[in-house]
Amino acid sequence: MLRSVVRSVARLSVPGSRSCSNASDKLVITEVNDKTGYATVTLNRPPVNSLNLELLTALSNTLDDLLNNKSRGMILTSSSKTVFSAGLDIMEMYKPKQERMKQFWTTLQDVWFKLYGSPFPTVAVINGHSPAGGCLLAMCCEYRVMLPNFSIGLNETQLGIVAPTWFQATMRNTLSRRDAELALTLGTLFNTEEALKVGLIDEIAASKEEGIAKATSFLDRFKKISPQARSMTKQALRSKDIMELEDNRSQDVDLFVYAVTQPKVQKGLEMYLEALKQKAAK
Amino acid sequence: MLRSVVRSVARLSVPGSRSCSNASDKLVITEVNDKTGYATVTLNRPPVNSLNLELLTALSNTLDDLLNNKSRGMILTSSSKTVFSAGLDIMEMYKPKQERMKQFWTTLQDVWFKLYGSPFPTVAVINGHSPAGGCLLAMCCEYRVMLPNFSIGLNETQLGIVAPTWFQATMRNTLSRRDAELALTLGTLFNTEEALKVGLIDEIAASKEEGIAKATSFLDRFKKISPQARSMTKQALRSKDIMELEDNRSQDVDLFVYAVTQPKVQKGLEMYLEALKQKAAK
Amino acid sequence: MLRSVVRSVARLSVPGSRSCSNASDKLVITEVNDKTGYATVTLNRPPVNSLNLELLTALSNTLDDLLNNKSRGMILTSSSKTVFSAGLDIMEMYKPKQERMKQFWTTLQDVWFKLYGSPFPTVAVINGHSPAGGCLLAMCCEYRVMLPNFSIGLNETQLGIVAPTWFQATMRNTLSRRDAELALTLGTLFNTEEALKVGLIDEIAASKEEGIAKATSFLDRFKKISPQARSMTKQALRSKDIMELEDNRSQDVDLFVYAVTQPKVQKGLEMYLEALKQKAAK
Repeated sequence: MLRSVVRSVARLSVPGSRSCSNASDKLVITEVNDKTGYATVTLNRPPVNSLNLELLTALSNTLDDLLNNKSRGMILTSSSKTVFSAGLDIMEMYKPKQERMKQFWTTLQDVWFKLYGSPFPTVAVINGHSPAGGCLLAMCCEYRVMLPNFSIGLNETQLGIVAPTWFQATMRNTLSRRDAELALTLGTLFNTEEALKVGLIDEIAASKEEGIAKATSFLDRFKKISPQARSMTKQALRSKDIMELEDNRSQDVDLFVYAVTQPKVQKGLEMYLEALKQKAAK
Repeated sequence: MLRSVVRSVARLSVPGSRSCSNASDKLVITEVNDKTGYATVTLNRPPVNSLNLELLTALSNTLDDLLNNKSRGMILTSSSKTVFSAGLDIMEMYKPKQERMKQFWTTLQDVWFKLYGSPFPTVAVINGHSPAGGCLLAMCCEYRVMLPNFSIGLNETQLGIVAPTWFQATMRNTLSRRDAELALTLGTLFNTEEALKVGLIDEIAASKEEGIAKATSFLDRFKKISPQARSMTKQALRSKDIMELEDNRSQDVDLFVYAVTQPKVQKGLEMYLEALKQKAAK
Repeated sequence: MLRSVVRSVARLSVPGSRSCSNASDKLVITEVNDKTGYATVTLNRPPVNSLNLELLTALSNTLDDLLNNKSRGMILTSSSKTVFSAGLDIMEMYKPKQERMKQFWTTLQDVWFKLYGSPFPTVAVINGHSPAGGCLLAMCCEYRVMLPNFSIGLNETQLGIVAPTWFQATMRNTLSRRDAELALTLGTLFNTEEALKVGLIDEIAASKEEGIAKATSFLDRFKKISPQARSMTKQALRSKDIMELEDNRSQDVDLFVYAVTQPKVQKGLEMYLEALKQKAAK
């Protein structure tokens, strides 16, 4: 499964050839449905929605907009047909500049705070592979609908790295402690059926359209519920996780910078990128 | 489901016509079985066991008595055939007097401390609808047997309010974190079958008699177990929840008073009571 | 079920007749598989692997060795055909000497820290009954394979005692909060099938050989995973439990000493040992 993700990334993404523009309005597309008022937010950084600083900034701004407009609900999905999000962009970590690296991680924290603690209800329509940071975004949402034959999970250990404690906390909010421990130490990538069984997703949809429809049905369940009461309830339930990162933001940034700049890690990234290039060249 | 509860409450309860006397011995009926030594505690404030100051005080005193008599077990049930408890009495919140309102909430806290942390084992025989505060009482018990075709849940968000953090903690002690988040944000009222499936209740009984029998069987499982060892074990497991409220008792009262006295909330209660009156008049 | 455990213990173990030598190398047998590199650690204090100071010290030293040798994985099992471990040795608590008792409990804590927080992956092959302290050792491992027709559980309340908070925390890392509360207050001993259903074990094996094979398969799943990434992930997930005991080590020892030296407890142990002797004499 991991191999198939890597292959798919390799096929689509040649490091160095960043095909997207810098315009943040294009990296994230927001469409508000006139009837329902729900916003569909589409990650749109081809080929695989790697989370770089620009995409995260665009997503962070989008979440601000929804907050300011008192959105009644958000559906998060991808413009790709095979990848929801491939996770953090490795290029942000390879030979990084100190300042940008700090800004990158701080922006990822921002996105997490805004999405995990959003007052409006959130659903992920996972219409492609969703490893690592992609899985994190999906788990921040309150409901998950996934298309068949894709994979999802916090597979960090398989990549030789450690999922930060707030990634772990987000998974523990979704899975049982027992299942989370196994999934996190093994770095399990679940296929769609397995993800449903373990509770990592809530429903399976045959197509993106059906996924959006199911997401809409979920959001409709809040129609007659006071938005304030539900948002306060959600935030109270998630507050300990949120406070834990709030109390450790700068240490968490330092830890990321320290880990990434280890020569061993840089060497590992170099080899990984070299392998991707060679695969892509075939 | 919510509608059916409201209708049933409307049919039975006309605000202003408090039919019960002030005698606390009648609001809560305690019967100790000679053979087993278990106490059956029956909530008896017709028509729907709305939790007002007097009923809560009677229940609090009952729990003290059981504690002092070193009870070997308690079964909590209702004298109504359709409602276990309709939850907090709205009349305690509508145009409230500051002092009584504080006493009301403090007594609810007392009941929670005494029931959630009781040294003796506790079972709820849920022989009727059990929304909001009714569900809280049931969840404080260590085991739940429920009759068919009723509803149970912390439906606060459906009423436009937020379940206090210790209500939430009590649900998290029973359901998984994932299920608790969905149930609390949606304000889900589960029917008996759904409640069993999600783990909110432990068994279904066809009648109150069968419910009492099943509750007795559960209590019998502790027959050969040291009461002291089991109560210390239970209290250790629940201690974090208990300490969290202990450390915040007065703030929690203040929060309740602040929330209830908001003009918007008072207006909402007025409209709700008006609707109840009109329904009852039909 | 409890009765069958007690009977089996009674049949095999006559207090006073300690059949094992003091040589710690014999109390715990460590065999490293040349092919896989995994260590099989066999508890070997006949007849029932009661955890006394010497056995715990040997186990603690073994865990140190595995740590120092950067073990890739450990399988914990028993040399007995009917008992994995009968739990703490009662003889350590009956008419105890203050100093030894403190050392005994401190060593148990050491074993827990080293096993629950081990950097290498751990599997228990539970090839016999596993009550109380035996269950604790099994739950410290990351995966559990059990043979049919045995029992496992923290049955402390059935013995009139309270499982320490870190025993409870270890169970909560494995079972849901709901199931842990029931299991701990009831002192439930689950048979193999029940243990699988509740999630206390992960797999059933027909024989010890099959158990070792299944344990090996589990360990093999980490083959391609960075040992450092996985150990840091595991330790992060278990860190709160570990810190909680670290912050309370000496109080926890004092509590144990205080509890055990109560005249009532000493009387209970005396009667229990007398009953064992009489059963064994038959």
